[in-house]
Amino acid sequence: MNIYLDNAATTKMSQTAIAAMLPYMDGIYGNPSSLHSAGQKANEALTSARERIATLLGCEPREITFTSGGSEADNQAIISAAKLGEEKGKKHIVSTAFEHHAVLHTFEKLKKAGFDITLLDVHENGLITPDQVTDAIRPDTCLVTIMYANNEIGTVQPIAEIGAICRERGVLFHTDAVQAIGHLHINVKEQNIDMLSLSAHKFHGPKGIGVLYARKGIRLTTLIEGGAQERGKRAGTENIPAIMGMVAAMEEACAKIDENAVKLTALRDKLIAGLSEIPHAILNGDEKQRLPGNVSFCFEGIEGESLLLLLDDKGICASSGSACTSGSLDPSHVLLAIGRIHDVAHGSLRLSLSAENTEEEVAYIITAVKEVVEYLRSISPIWRDLVAGKKEFVIK
Amino acid sequence: MNIYLDNAATTKMSQTAIAAMLPYMDGIYGNPSSLHSAGQKANEALTSARERIATLLGCEPREITFTSGGSEADNQAIISAAKLGEEKGKKHIVSTAFEHHAVLHTFEKLKKAGFDITLLDVHENGLITPDQVTDAIRPDTCLVTIMYANNEIGTVQPIAEIGAICRERGVLFHTDAVQAIGHLHINVKEQNIDMLSLSAHKFHGPKGIGVLYARKGIRLTTLIEGGAQERGKRAGTENIPAIMGMVAAMEEACAKIDENAVKLTALRDKLIAGLSEIPHAILNGDEKQRLPGNVSFCFEGIEGESLLLLLDDKGICASSGSACTSGSLDPSHVLLAIGRIHDVAHGSLRLSLSAENTEEEVAYIITAVKEVVEYLRSISPIWRDLVAGKKEFVIK
Repeated sequence: MNIYLDNAATTKMSQTAIAAMLPYMDGIYGNPSSLHSAGQKANEALTSARERIATLLGCEPREITFTSGGSEADNQAIISAAKLGEEKGKKHIVSTAFEHHAVLHTFEKLKKAGFDITLLDVHENGLITPDQVTDAIRPDTCLVTIMYANNEIGTVQPIAEIGAICRERGVLFHTDAVQAIGHLHINVKEQNIDMLSLSAHKFHGPKGIGVLYARKGIRLTTLIEGGAQERGKRAGTENIPAIMGMVAAMEEACAKIDENAVKLTALRDKLIAGLSEIPHAILNGDEKQRLPGNVSFCFEGIEGESLLLLLDDKGICASSGSACTSGSLDPSHVLLAIGRIHDVAHGSLRLSLSAENTEEEVAYIITAVKEVVEYLRSISPIWRDLVAGKKEFVIK
Repeated sequence: MNIYLDNAATTKMSQTAIAAMLPYMDGIYGNPSSLHSAGQKANEALTSARERIATLLGCEPREITFTSGGSEADNQAIISAAKLGEEKGKKHIVSTAFEHHAVLHTFEKLKKAGFDITLLDVHENGLITPDQVTDAIRPDTCLVTIMYANNEIGTVQPIAEIGAICRERGVLFHTDAVQAIGHLHINVKEQNIDMLSLSAHKFHGPKGIGVLYARKGIRLTTLIEGGAQERGKRAGTENIPAIMGMVAAMEEACAKIDENAVKLTALRDKLIAGLSEIPHAILNGDEKQRLPGNVSFCFEGIEGESLLLLLDDKGICASSGSACTSGSLDPSHVLLAIGRIHDVAHGSLRLSLSAENTEEEVAYIITAVKEVVEYLRSISPIWRDLVAGKKEFVIK
């Protein structure tokens, strides 16, 4: 068995995406800024890619800026909104406690520049409510940034409602949609989204390429200075092969959203049902209001890292949470945000499915996780104390 | 005929580089930050790539930071050095007037933050002297940044001498080596280079990937915040396919530096000799102290853009200067820096060769350029005035 269940960390490139990249490596390889025909052919590809991405997002081509990925797009969106706010004397930002670090760490920079950040409490179900946003907006609020779907627990926020509130209040609204694109139907105009970040390698496209959508009229701050590429907002020779791979992958994923959602939701719910049979286990995030392919559990009395290593021995590639924070000994800030205590947050498991996963794999995984959790508990001093009543169970 | 002579703008990917990327797209596609075996295999590739790049540059693996390209590397190097300088009250930077815009535009940001920038005059031969650097360094100088080889006129600066001066004076020395890597022998330790930027797509590697070398002990400022990738200095999932393609291309190019230099220099010098026969034409940059594959001319009385379009009709992809500034109506800042007046700078042509170019192509190009220049002059009012003596020739 060789089962990849870490699609929220990164995905295998689709054959369509690879095939879309290759012609631009040694065929149409010109620099789109060059006047000659080799450059102009590359430039035509760039123009068409921008149009196709705009169609998928429901916006205009000129509202698309290509970046090196989701982190850069998040950084640029937030810095841009902050700068625009500062010019009007507005230095307050509303966000949540369980954003990606590309968002949270950018706030650290802004705090040093005198910005005030309100991080909304996340309910235990992994959701925030539109009312929380309404209540948090102040006269000096320049930006609301709330992730579309959480990268660890997969909960999907009421984005359209939040967008409507922000539009009504005249506050810019950005969403990190890195985990949502290709899985959920998104239309930035209908959902009143002003800025949106995405990353190709999360939907079977290439690594190193992403998009920042910014509604026209929103002046972006340039993070990488240099040539006049991307209307002067992002210097550096355009990565045409990756852009073409991204567009192909995005079209492929978006065309199959409904079909994949049915399949993934069925697999996900089987996994949730199966793993819920494990005693003292708890699903992280709302049961229904979550990504079709996301399963996240905490198991009391064990260490997530050991769980991953033993599952890996059984051919299962899973994660405890975000890949971007693995290597850190701190428990996940996402799990802490939904109220898990440190001990429990340490025993987390994220399974993020793709449409390539099967029912057979799901059955195998449930058995494997049950076995490994049981084994780890059998050697866990904490578990012994819990069973002996020396410590109290947190997860009933 | 289909001749690509714009290798300073971007290059065709080598088959070696493409072959090196492919296994990491749908085979070893894991996230290097993931604990499971799919992630660890990717992480092993990342580690080995870093070691191989370090070997090629003559530094240690931990001194290598992967970026999205040369522009990002330039930005990060300069911002980092400026920040370190500021902490010591040193806010003066020495550079040249003909750097890439990734450098010059970053200075604009720094000027607003109170930095003082000395741009050294470039001699008419496209070179600066070590003495100029010595004279420009002040007690408050925190950085000297001088490009290794110019992207338009190809002149190669005395980098080792400048490095020695900076090391002696205790000033950080950065060089934008985007045009030099793979063409010239570079060893950062021997040349006393503290920071160096490179970009893979200039040496037949993939677009969207580059390197910032920074000597250990130099604390980099993070431009893109987020996960802890690249020791916290550059967030975003590592672009393993592109990194592997870059390493393969760099090893391939560096192994052939001498062989290619002999071939390219011969082709270059034939082109220079042939184009010098055109009346009122002038070579830009020193005849010998230039990249093996760079030819840059100004032709009096014509427009570079028309020249490019007519050459394109003859199957020749050439450039007037930097691709990053094409689309701008301003004359090249590089040509102005070496003393060309506006009218002359507008009539520029850059031919940047690769080892794939042939003697037959060179002969074809010389004839084509002669024909096109003659034709354009025949319809040029400026040329008519020059010939009639109503205006004076600048190029004798």
